[in-house]
Amino acid sequence: MGQGNSHEGLVFSKDPNHPANLICSLCKNFYTLGWVTGTGGGISIRHESHVYLAPSGVQKERITPRDIFVMDFPTKTYLRSPPSLKPSACTPLFMASFTKRNAGACIHTHSQAAVLCTLLTKGSTWSVANVEQIKAIPRPSTGGYYGFFDKLVIPIIENTAHEEDLTESLEKAIDEYPDTCAVLVRRHGVYVWGDTVWKAKTQAESLDYLFQLAVEMVKLGMDPAGPIAGAE
Amino acid sequence: MGQGNSHEGLVFSKDPNHPANLICSLCKNFYTLGWVTGTGGGISIRHESHVYLAPSGVQKERITPRDIFVMDFPTKTYLRSPPSLKPSACTPLFMASFTKRNAGACIHTHSQAAVLCTLLTKGSTWSVANVEQIKAIPRPSTGGYYGFFDKLVIPIIENTAHEEDLTESLEKAIDEYPDTCAVLVRRHGVYVWGDTVWKAKTQAESLDYLFQLAVEMVKLGMDPAGPIAGAE
Amino acid sequence: MGQGNSHEGLVFSKDPNHPANLICSLCKNFYTLGWVTGTGGGISIRHESHVYLAPSGVQKERITPRDIFVMDFPTKTYLRSPPSLKPSACTPLFMASFTKRNAGACIHTHSQAAVLCTLLTKGSTWSVANVEQIKAIPRPSTGGYYGFFDKLVIPIIENTAHEEDLTESLEKAIDEYPDTCAVLVRRHGVYVWGDTVWKAKTQAESLDYLFQLAVEMVKLGMDPAGPIAGAE
Amino acid sequence: MGQGNSHEGLVFSKDPNHPANLICSLCKNFYTLGWVTGTGGGISIRHESHVYLAPSGVQKERITPRDIFVMDFPTKTYLRSPPSLKPSACTPLFMASFTKRNAGACIHTHSQAAVLCTLLTKGSTWSVANVEQIKAIPRPSTGGYYGFFDKLVIPIIENTAHEEDLTESLEKAIDEYPDTCAVLVRRHGVYVWGDTVWKAKTQAESLDYLFQLAVEMVKLGMDPAGPIAGAE
Repeated sequence: MGQGNSHEGLVFSKDPNHPANLICSLCKNFYTLGWVTGTGGGISIRHESHVYLAPSGVQKERITPRDIFVMDFPTKTYLRSPPSLKPSACTPLFMASFTKRNAGACIHTHSQAAVLCTLLTKGSTWSVANVEQIKAIPRPSTGGYYGFFDKLVIPIIENTAHEEDLTESLEKAIDEYPDTCAVLVRRHGVYVWGDTVWKAKTQAESLDYLFQLAVEMVKLGMDPAGPIAGAE
Repeated sequence: MGQGNSHEGLVFSKDPNHPANLICSLCKNFYTLGWVTGTGGGISIRHESHVYLAPSGVQKERITPRDIFVMDFPTKTYLRSPPSLKPSACTPLFMASFTKRNAGACIHTHSQAAVLCTLLTKGSTWSVANVEQIKAIPRPSTGGYYGFFDKLVIPIIENTAHEEDLTESLEKAIDEYPDTCAVLVRRHGVYVWGDTVWKAKTQAESLDYLFQLAVEMVKLGMDPAGPIAGAE
Repeated sequence: MGQGNSHEGLVFSKDPNHPANLICSLCKNFYTLGWVTGTGGGISIRHESHVYLAPSGVQKERITPRDIFVMDFPTKTYLRSPPSLKPSACTPLFMASFTKRNAGACIHTHSQAAVLCTLLTKGSTWSVANVEQIKAIPRPSTGGYYGFFDKLVIPIIENTAHEEDLTESLEKAIDEYPDTCAVLVRRHGVYVWGDTVWKAKTQAESLDYLFQLAVEMVKLGMDPAGPIAGAE
Repeated sequence: MGQGNSHEGLVFSKDPNHPANLICSLCKNFYTLGWVTGTGGGISIRHESHVYLAPSGVQKERITPRDIFVMDFPTKTYLRSPPSLKPSACTPLFMASFTKRNAGACIHTHSQAAVLCTLLTKGSTWSVANVEQIKAIPRPSTGGYYGFFDKLVIPIIENTAHEEDLTESLEKAIDEYPDTCAVLVRRHGVYVWGDTVWKAKTQAESLDYLFQLAVEMVKLGMDPAGPIAGAE
């Protein structure tokens, strides 16, 4: 209905696993997790040579395939731009994960637990150790995943006035932490990517679980990255 | 079925974005957010010359278009009054946002986070600074939005025995804080408005996010309005 | 399908507001609120001369009208008893609210906030004051509701080994606190009733809101029943 | 559709209580409870001579009967293995509950409350006492359930690098605590079983309720296993 020169075939599909449908169903999911409150946060999926992006400033739990932007990955040109919508300001940050890590999807959340973790440390990294859920986080340098006895370290970058200005420091963090699948942004949230949309989701959920657990541990006087103090 | 002289055409529509349908679906949404527990809170939408209002004292997650009041904005007379229901006691407060700010919608929540924030300060304002989510809050005096490095200040008014008696102090707060899109009511909740229903929702969600985060920061010994203490 | 001598007409109706349907939809609702976790808690509705009861020990979010017991209120005899199910152990407690207060519905929750409030005081009552949500609680002695400046007092009874053994002390609390619409049970939960099912739900939600808020106030070093410390 | 030699009749049924359908609907339920975040946790149901298992590393809230493994319990051989999926690493732990306790279902959660409870004690057990919800937990040695005045004790085993390596210590805990229906795994989660899928669910929910309540009690300075300090 009056979508003009937007390319409908790029986003309309009966397959619930089509990237345009997945962005919609996952954004609903993320809304219930508190990750995309107040239009914040989002997700981008790269499928073959296409990048699918949610628009900026819309209710994430109510977007439909009609609202999805599609970019040609090799040329970085938009194949589909819904009229009267703007692409997300996160776009260059999502692209960094696709370009530098060959990611299949990138999730950005404003999770309060992520923000609190960036506030609980003044340093440039956040750590947690010896929790089973760590094992869901990949460690490319070993060809596998973090182990239960490992310490997981996630870089934190400082926030900027404009979201796109995070790109340089996010790319630097990606370079400096070759094992990381995520970058925390202080007082802002987190970017998490994965080889596929499902891996990105698993990693984003697992990190958020760890952020939440760490906040509770601090409230209870425990160090989330401290050694195991188990049974004698 | 026996709706008497109520005007059905004003509220029955197949368009999910019709104000009467939106009030119903948004109230369900707000119920899951804990904003309208126990029939408290609500939303009013102004569309062209009509103001749509939910009734008083009903289960907000179960209202239907049949329950919606419609007022003619220019004359302030009810065009549709569902039999055996009363308009919300919040009506004069919603109207203040429409009249004084030309708002398109106004949301009232009893959010516990909002109440806790009013309890954590004895002063007549609540503040938060340096959190990304602040950027979702408009700052009319600049023609734009708050920036990450700004401090957001929301006025707090004292609660009264009867909700309608809040009107005068709410209008005074609106006048004294020309940049604010919200007024906190101590030990009660918050009123948030926006140019459109979606902007009102975005702003209400973003403020609630900030209220929640601020409460957690206080529990962890941090000042929500304090300076950034970042990486060295 | 093999329901034997159970009376189908008593519980099968297309009206979503039929008591048997309401018990099912409200139990789903209460499950998401954390009130009926692990088959605990429940609701009974009295409609004309019939009392509708959920069975004992079933998944509250999955019950269907087929599972509902129906009792004749004047004679206290069961008109419908689903085979292989037992009536809830809460039955005599629900009945106390119907008999002594002419309630139209009674809700029992195992809400953790309710349990925590009974643990935060050693006395035989729990109190909260000066919160807007108090105004949803009826005060029969005044013919109206509690006001914002009132202190709400809810009696606490001690738990017993068997739920039915609570009946005597619950009835005593009802007699001693003629204004109360609820009785807390220490280390167990709360019973809340109302003139209609909707009033019972409103009051149960509002009390739970107040229990949650009070727990958070204590965590933040504030007295939920203390005086207002507002703006100077 | 190209499922090869998998046996469709084993998992496709219109009965919502068929084990394959129940695993799917319960995993959705558990996802909303935060038990299976990031593909962690799961459930296995034993029905007659068949054991039904969810696959490893999939989104638990999105699994379908097509994804379910079926094992022949007497011979421990897989009757149905969905192509390109792996059985859960929890399988030997689920099997321990079926073999040693004749359980009808076993639930594994990564509940943060469970993890926090294992962190709040250095010992090899976790305890809670005098809470009504304890009465949902069976006590086989008495032929009944725990009573309100009893202390519930749940064994804690230490986590290992690989989930299957937990089997020996889990079996040892089952032997040493003949009354327990659950084993906590430090810094990992909990395994809970029951005679039927519904009993397993009731017990898992009730334990999680107790874990959550205990964490809140500790935050408020109370001992979850301490004596009753009631009204004078």
